Amino acid sequence: MSQIFSYRQLLDFARNIFLQIGCDEENAALASRVLLSADLRGVDSHGIARLSGYVRLWDAKRVNACPQIKILHETPSTATVDGDSGLGLVVAPKAMRIAIEKAKQVGTGWVSVQNSNHFGIAGYHSMMALEEDMIGISMTNASPLVAPTFSVERLLGTNPICVAIPAGEQPAFVADMATTTAANGKLEILQRKGGVAPPGWIQDKTGKSSTDPHELKAGGALLPLGGDKEHGSHKGYALGAIVDIFSAVLSGANYGPWVPPFPAYVPMPTYMPGKGIGHFFGAMRIDAFRPAEEFKKHMDQWIKRFREARPASGFEKVIIPGDPEREMENVRMINGIPLLGPVVDDLKYLAEKFGVEMVNVKS
Amino acid sequence: MSQIFSYRQLLDFARNIFLQIGCDEENAALASRVLLSADLRGVDSHGIARLSGYVRLWDAKRVNACPQIKILHETPSTATVDGDSGLGLVVAPKAMRIAIEKAKQVGTGWVSVQNSNHFGIAGYHSMMALEEDMIGISMTNASPLVAPTFSVERLLGTNPICVAIPAGEQPAFVADMATTTAANGKLEILQRKGGVAPPGWIQDKTGKSSTDPHELKAGGALLPLGGDKEHGSHKGYALGAIVDIFSAVLSGANYGPWVPPFPAYVPMPTYMPGKGIGHFFGAMRIDAFRPAEEFKKHMDQWIKRFREARPASGFEKVIIPGDPEREMENVRMINGIPLLGPVVDDLKYLAEKFGVEMVNVKS
Repeated sequence: MSQIFSYRQLLDFARNIFLQIGCDEENAALASRVLLSADLRGVDSHGIARLSGYVRLWDAKRVNACPQIKILHETPSTATVDGDSGLGLVVAPKAMRIAIEKAKQVGTGWVSVQNSNHFGIAGYHSMMALEEDMIGISMTNASPLVAPTFSVERLLGTNPICVAIPAGEQPAFVADMATTTAANGKLEILQRKGGVAPPGWIQDKTGKSSTDPHELKAGGALLPLGGDKEHGSHKGYALGAIVDIFSAVLSGANYGPWVPPFPAYVPMPTYMPGKGIGHFFGAMRIDAFRPAEEFKKHMDQWIKRFREARPASGFEKVIIPGDPEREMENVRMINGIPLLGPVVDDLKYLAEKFGVEMVNVKS
Repeated sequence: MSQIFSYRQLLDFARNIFLQIGCDEENAALASRVLLSADLRGVDSHGIARLSGYVRLWDAKRVNACPQIKILHETPSTATVDGDSGLGLVVAPKAMRIAIEKAKQVGTGWVSVQNSNHFGIAGYHSMMALEEDMIGISMTNASPLVAPTFSVERLLGTNPICVAIPAGEQPAFVADMATTTAANGKLEILQRKGGVAPPGWIQDKTGKSSTDPHELKAGGALLPLGGDKEHGSHKGYALGAIVDIFSAVLSGANYGPWVPPFPAYVPMPTYMPGKGIGHFFGAMRIDAFRPAEEFKKHMDQWIKRFREARPASGFEKVIIPGDPEREMENVRMINGIPLLGPVVDDLKYLAEKFGVEMVNVKS
């Protein structure tokens, strides 16, 4: 049902398409690298499967291929950035770079971004900090799919948070998570397969827990991490809210139910309190707290102790956040990236639309 | 079954006890204020019910009543603080003050603390930022009660996170949450009442989900927010891990399974990679991102929109994080604070031990 493509070829194809919509060489290379990092890490919902979606946003004049990204306001440790309607795939790593540069100067850097678009996977941006011996933090708001605890209205996006922490001999700790019980991508898989969702993932339009993944498109909503109040959904709701506020109320982007949708065919909200969607980035220099080598030695010990924890019966081992994605990246870099039929069709459509060569199936 | 006491009298009593163990006037006043803020806000497990526990730590020479709190290392936006084995109730607000002062200078301030003890409720510390028009963040690690996803070993504390965000006409947004499905205090209530825990709160010693609240003391564990993998417990585990790392690996405190226990009768871990328990604090000046009045106007709109969300059938309204605790504080400040029999007995024991007057029941 799926065909395998090489990372390198998909990267080139995406770069070509970004060039076709008017990105310069640097931005096209950056956007394709960010996009494909999702496919490599196994987060298929945020990778090349979304390329046609970005193009449709550009068709709808909601994406500026040549953004003038600028700092609206700053202090030694902070900045508010205007993404100028650029691709989030470009705006986000540039904003993260500002956070990193500030951390070099004063220990930490914190950047809130307005007027941006979908930024791909959160992990890419926070992991930029790792090579600088910094902790990286990234988050973004997104169009509303999630009902706060006790409500039937969709007021929050799946609003992910990623925290990347360097280690020494061990690989880095990278926790990249939607603040919902299940990411929307997992639900989309169930919708395609006609599967049943576990209770606690979604509710129907009356607010009753449902296991039918199609309820989401029938007025239902995704549920905050926890699922229901008894299982702590007020905490998942609070986490999603914090992401929304840091990303958008702090920057001047749209928030809550007024965040513009990713699919270009969905009409824009009639009221919009800010500009575009919002992100928030942080970088903390390890040696702003203690010598980096000392920290990494203890991170290694932390990771090893958790990795060696006695498993519960029926389970193999405890997983360190970031392990599955890193292992997937190693495999896919060599073996290639599997794409489902509809995704391949989307790429063919883009190849025809712009008159560029379609990628070949990996031999 | 419970008796009512006035806030003021309990505050004076606690201050008296802290003076008796050797705190100076300033620290005794501060510690009692932090402690009682938990009772006022309805977090009874972290308030005066713990006073005798702090005294027992002092008896066991694990608390230094006159700590020399010092900065071990700093940059313009960060500091690592040595709490000198002081009461967390004193160390934490002083470390948070350092974060606030740094934010005044360079926009944000971030402080990691080693060599501390239990700091009461996280909410007190992050809410210190509100009156400065800052966002406040506080977290702490704690002795291990929580098993990471797929394990039977307790490797994390309930590791709470609190984020306090100022608003304008609306009251502040204050999310104060353990990173477990349910806080340990809720389980203790069920243990006392002989109640049944909802599935997803705890597991037994083999790692099977259990509804018997006593399993926790029989080798079981609390579960990370989410409960099981299918419901996102790997996210709750990652959140608890991030709190542990920011609070302790960054500062040089103990982490993971090696965090010293709060009850003085529980033996200390035989191996300890750091000093005491760890906390982490952050303060972000709103006007380091955008004018505070503008931000607050949008926060008001955010809060109002969520407050007015259409409730699910069977529910009254959506709750803004911090609402229940603020309402409880207003009630208890006037009507008094109810204490259960065993807590009253503990206070009598302390009154006798130190020859101070016992508080009277509120007339």
